Amino acid sequence: MPISQSDSVVLMDAKKRKVLIRPDAEPQRIKRLGYFAPKELVGCEYFTTIRINNKDFMILAPSVIDKVAGLKRTAQIILPKDSALIALYCDIRCGSVVVEGGIGSGALTIVLAHIVRPTGKVVSYEIREEFAECALANLRNANLAAYVELKRCDITVGIAENDVDAVVVDIQNPQDVVEHAKRALKQGGHFCAYTPTTNQVELVVRTLRAHDFKELKTIENIQREIVVGAGVRPSFEMLGHTGYLTFARKF
Amino acid sequence: MPISQSDSVVLMDAKKRKVLIRPDAEPQRIKRLGYFAPKELVGCEYFTTIRINNKDFMILAPSVIDKVAGLKRTAQIILPKDSALIALYCDIRCGSVVVEGGIGSGALTIVLAHIVRPTGKVVSYEIREEFAECALANLRNANLAAYVELKRCDITVGIAENDVDAVVVDIQNPQDVVEHAKRALKQGGHFCAYTPTTNQVELVVRTLRAHDFKELKTIENIQREIVVGAGVRPSFEMLGHTGYLTFARKF
Amino acid sequence: MPISQSDSVVLMDAKKRKVLIRPDAEPQRIKRLGYFAPKELVGCEYFTTIRINNKDFMILAPSVIDKVAGLKRTAQIILPKDSALIALYCDIRCGSVVVEGGIGSGALTIVLAHIVRPTGKVVSYEIREEFAECALANLRNANLAAYVELKRCDITVGIAENDVDAVVVDIQNPQDVVEHAKRALKQGGHFCAYTPTTNQVELVVRTLRAHDFKELKTIENIQREIVVGAGVRPSFEMLGHTGYLTFARKF
Amino acid sequence: MPISQSDSVVLMDAKKRKVLIRPDAEPQRIKRLGYFAPKELVGCEYFTTIRINNKDFMILAPSVIDKVAGLKRTAQIILPKDSALIALYCDIRCGSVVVEGGIGSGALTIVLAHIVRPTGKVVSYEIREEFAECALANLRNANLAAYVELKRCDITVGIAENDVDAVVVDIQNPQDVVEHAKRALKQGGHFCAYTPTTNQVELVVRTLRAHDFKELKTIENIQREIVVGAGVRPSFEMLGHTGYLTFARKF
Repeated sequence: MPISQSDSVVLMDAKKRKVLIRPDAEPQRIKRLGYFAPKELVGCEYFTTIRINNKDFMILAPSVIDKVAGLKRTAQIILPKDSALIALYCDIRCGSVVVEGGIGSGALTIVLAHIVRPTGKVVSYEIREEFAECALANLRNANLAAYVELKRCDITVGIAENDVDAVVVDIQNPQDVVEHAKRALKQGGHFCAYTPTTNQVELVVRTLRAHDFKELKTIENIQREIVVGAGVRPSFEMLGHTGYLTFARKF
Repeated sequence: MPISQSDSVVLMDAKKRKVLIRPDAEPQRIKRLGYFAPKELVGCEYFTTIRINNKDFMILAPSVIDKVAGLKRTAQIILPKDSALIALYCDIRCGSVVVEGGIGSGALTIVLAHIVRPTGKVVSYEIREEFAECALANLRNANLAAYVELKRCDITVGIAENDVDAVVVDIQNPQDVVEHAKRALKQGGHFCAYTPTTNQVELVVRTLRAHDFKELKTIENIQREIVVGAGVRPSFEMLGHTGYLTFARKF
Repeated sequence: MPISQSDSVVLMDAKKRKVLIRPDAEPQRIKRLGYFAPKELVGCEYFTTIRINNKDFMILAPSVIDKVAGLKRTAQIILPKDSALIALYCDIRCGSVVVEGGIGSGALTIVLAHIVRPTGKVVSYEIREEFAECALANLRNANLAAYVELKRCDITVGIAENDVDAVVVDIQNPQDVVEHAKRALKQGGHFCAYTPTTNQVELVVRTLRAHDFKELKTIENIQREIVVGAGVRPSFEMLGHTGYLTFARKF
Repeated sequence: MPISQSDSVVLMDAKKRKVLIRPDAEPQRIKRLGYFAPKELVGCEYFTTIRINNKDFMILAPSVIDKVAGLKRTAQIILPKDSALIALYCDIRCGSVVVEGGIGSGALTIVLAHIVRPTGKVVSYEIREEFAECALANLRNANLAAYVELKRCDITVGIAENDVDAVVVDIQNPQDVVEHAKRALKQGGHFCAYTPTTNQVELVVRTLRAHDFKELKTIENIQREIVVGAGVRPSFEMLGHTGYLTFARKF
């Protein structure tokens, strides 16, 4: 199937470095490519090679991991190792309606939108202008904006939606969302807070208990990479911490 | 929506212990319930209470985690902490066609079927009779059997499917599937091997390299639970190891 | 060198289970041995076999790890994985004078006494009667009581010693010892607090900063055991957490 | 006590950066200090300030951790988190005689010499010229050379010593030392191999079993740093892996 202008495309150079691109974007200077008109990609076939400014690039269909890896960051993002757990533990699947508090750069939003489409949607609350704009651009680049409704509202003030499948928050004070989540969630629905510090874990857990949430569980997910060289060993490089995931359920 | 006979239902007792049940199952002695005819559940409403043998149970709609927790085991299962990553890193979503090698008790199959439905499917290869039967019963109990095709074939002999989105194997010798996976996968498709030992990691990684798979990555995912009591601390209880996840991509 | 009555001895049965014993103890019923008069060991040679109640035991000289493993517990003990770091990071060696706050069952005390002897000493503050008695018995059994001075005083009220090399505390409220430690430590001396929760870490760190301690560092030491069976893998069994170690230095 | 010329001294600048120095070294250009004659330190008091090339430095007595941190590296070193465990698990203390295979930059040697002094010693086998020289310079700088005997011999060919308390090896092929260690160790003595890969772990463990070593145990020691800022959390920075420690005992 040839590439259409609304697709999301990855160009990979000889050194396996990838650039995520949207064919309907304006001609522009792009890192690794140089000046390039993305619409040249329209009509090309995936898994073929294109020559741009005297360098060869392979045209790939991006996986969801490519989409997250290719986003532009304005803030620390939620990594796939964590968003994978958020999605499964919150029972999010195609058709789910998810309310997200704090879109950040849109990394978690990309994963959630990827999963809930085509019949579900992500409603994302974000009050910070620069995050909202950056995230929207990233979602468009990932060809997932159609499944996301971005609301420029403060989720700690209230959640307008009802009967939602999950509420996922990545904000400083997740405890201020607990009461609203209790009201917005369907019976059996899931709440998740992503928080870097144990102080935040304590606050949100105590608030969830006070609001009679069930099946509370806080986990930390540590990922090690294994290297196969002369022998097998864990990588010396490692990310020491991202965030704690606190899950709870309403019923 | 009242419960139908093909639903999958969780009954939770006063101590929050859960039993996963299928309303169309035969009357039988069930742990925690005593002798019970599951069809009594048909027509009941979710999130109401039912009295069985003088004990009250809450009727819940099972999450995918409930479905995995409620399965009967004949072997060590792949836990949600690992299956969540397998699904996301292999780009598996609704509509995906996944080939699975080694169904075991069906824990990973439940997660994959939960994600690919309603338009995708899981084709599972399993040669061991007792696993096949146990897994099928678990899939029926989870109301997910319709999305799984179980083949009593040896995946190390060959994969009949073509153009599949992902091949995921949990067998002793995943290296023997690499060549078949290379042929069965679509361009851009994903391979994943789940292996408990580093010796297996080494064998499968070297075989993937020999078959020119791309983007090899082996990870170990360590999960710690955090306890909020008098203070916050990691749980003393911890599972030290499950398996290594080796990912690769064809293109 | 034949065994004398003040030695500490390990008896190991055919299943490699060990009992730590002091030859000058009274005849008594001892787990795994049955009724036994320890003084029968006097004059025996290490690494020979002794027959007790129709079972053979190998007579071993206990390592410091054997001494810790063989103690009787009234409380959670500080494990060698942590006490090893405490000793080295606090620069404790033969000749050091160490003040310990909270002797517990004496597990850390055994390690510290083992290291500081013969010219140094451990001064241990403990207000709880049952801990003091249990720890003393354990120290005698380990043949290390001579290097420990046990004070039935509250270390949060004050430290009588001056110019000590290190102050190590394993109590609920280590922050209440910081001021006293500042006065008791020599220039360049080391402080260490062992605390299970992050709340305690925060309190003691903020107090150490307020008292101008230097080189603050809090670590968690996670130990995994590796199993070599059919292949190599981490053990499934694992202790998820013990305590955080907060180090600081006075100068 | 004023500084003598054989002391080991730490100079710390206003930014808390430390330089490890030996007062009897030749005048030279030293990083952070500029051109400096170390003998100027002789007679100074510890914990006072010295002005060097218009910058103030505090004069400190180095802890063993300072000595390791201040060494010059030609190779990856064994970190204190690991050497602390090696020392305690091998029952090394003042008076112990330890044979070391592979001195590297001398980091483990510094810790062992620090512990065994003044009555014990470390006998270190090293065949690589550049390591031997670098390690010796580091040991002199740390004022610990007197407790180390460096042998320019291949430990896989044989160990000349008898009745030693411990044999500790950090070489590519520790399995080739097992037989020699069995002969050199005293009854009850300890063997330890430090190896980065699981393949090496497997080889040395199988060889130790074949030579009837007892109490085999392989561990990995993972250290996380905890940060106390606005809240408490593990550090984002983390060293993913150093080496596996395999312990065994002869009796």
